[in-house]
Amino acid sequence: MPSNPLQTLLTQTPEEGYALAVKLAQKGVGVTQPSEEIRKMLRPVYSRDADSLIAVSQVIATHFQTVAAANNYWRTWTPPYY
Amino acid sequence: MPSNPLQTLLTQTPEEGYALAVKLAQKGVGVTQPSEEIRKMLRPVYSRDADSLIAVSQVIATHFQTVAAANNYWRTWTPPYY
Amino acid sequence: MPSNPLQTLLTQTPEEGYALAVKLAQKGVGVTQPSEEIRKMLRPVYSRDADSLIAVSQVIATHFQTVAAANNYWRTWTPPYY
Amino acid sequence: MPSNPLQTLLTQTPEEGYALAVKLAQKGVGVTQPSEEIRKMLRPVYSRDADSLIAVSQVIATHFQTVAAANNYWRTWTPPYY
Amino acid sequence: MPSNPLQTLLTQTPEEGYALAVKLAQKGVGVTQPSEEIRKMLRPVYSRDADSLIAVSQVIATHFQTVAAANNYWRTWTPPYY
Amino acid sequence: MPSNPLQTLLTQTPEEGYALAVKLAQKGVGVTQPSEEIRKMLRPVYSRDADSLIAVSQVIATHFQTVAAANNYWRTWTPPYY
Repeated sequence: MPSNPLQTLLTQTPEEGYALAVKLAQKGVGVTQPSEEIRKMLRPVYSRDADSLIAVSQVIATHFQTVAAANNYWRTWTPPYY
Repeated sequence: MPSNPLQTLLTQTPEEGYALAVKLAQKGVGVTQPSEEIRKMLRPVYSRDADSLIAVSQVIATHFQTVAAANNYWRTWTPPYY
Repeated sequence: MPSNPLQTLLTQTPEEGYALAVKLAQKGVGVTQPSEEIRKMLRPVYSRDADSLIAVSQVIATHFQTVAAANNYWRTWTPPYY
Repeated sequence: MPSNPLQTLLTQTPEEGYALAVKLAQKGVGVTQPSEEIRKMLRPVYSRDADSLIAVSQVIATHFQTVAAANNYWRTWTPPYY
Repeated sequence: MPSNPLQTLLTQTPEEGYALAVKLAQKGVGVTQPSEEIRKMLRPVYSRDADSLIAVSQVIATHFQTVAAANNYWRTWTPPYY
Repeated sequence: MPSNPLQTLLTQTPEEGYALAVKLAQKGVGVTQPSEEIRKMLRPVYSRDADSLIAVSQVIATHFQTVAAANNYWRTWTPPYY
């Protein structure tokens, strides 16, 4: 995973924040299995296995929590009754 | 998952917030397996497997935490003893 | 799961909050498998499988976190040393 | 699980808070499998299975987060640099 | 797990906080399987199974979140832009 | 895992924070299986198993939540509408 390093958790929109969460989830796989070749071999298997797909979605959900909090949930209003 | 991009985490009601959490969970599957055809093939399997259904519900629960926090839990009162 | 929509996360007591968390966990299964008939077929299986029961309990725990935070933990005192 | 209803998340000590987290985890199993007879049949199995024990510990950990936050972490000091 | 009761979540350092998280994870296994004999029998199995080790690490991670929050992340500075 | 003890959760950048989260996840495995020899034997197995890799990524995600919160999400701006 020799992609550009993670500079910020700030994004303009929730959509971009979600994309960052996906990247963070992939990065976790990349640090444990650095070989892109092996990761590519695994991909056709887990991407056709419902339980694996759900597990990936869970990792993304956890990272999205972090990114959303970092961005103060992209709020454009002050919540009443805080 | 070429649906409309995620614009906001703000919803009017908890019910709408839950629906958004479901969408966020599905999106996590969609980014990992973009082929709608394959996802449709998997659906009859996992939707009849109790453990898969529970795992999906877990992903939704994680996203609902995020959406609920974003909406300040749809509070209509100020909690005492904060 | 055509039950009444989710109106509020506010409950009077932790016990009621827990019941709401259970409902939120079931709702996650209901949206993924809308057929009540199929869900009823699955029930005798997972409700006698320890690992499935533990997984359901995990989903409830996640929702209970959300509901408890929404209710400011049903606090009746102001914590010192905040 | 017809035990006394959950009245409060407030406990005097972390030890009591942990005990409450355990009770909350068991309650999640109890609502899904109300038959005490069946739960007792399952117990010798999962209590000798390492992975089941770890999964139970995960549920307890999630509830302990909630209980600890509710009790403001039983703090007896004000953290500096908040 | 008849060890000394949990008195505080306060620790001097992150290292000690991590050790406490490990103890909290083990405690969750201990309350469900109180027999030290049985737990010792299970140990050689799960401690050589990668998936079990990862699952234990997940439980520790959850408790470390709690302990870190309790200690205000052992901060020695006030974060800017709060 | 006799590496240097954990001194701080503070890092300069999200990239370094992610690296710390990876270290925290590995540490959880190390405390449960202290033998480096055994851990090395397990590595070729789980690092080629998609589900194990996803599970590792989940542990990292949980620790990254903690590290990100500790660093106030490396914010360089004050979020509006807090």
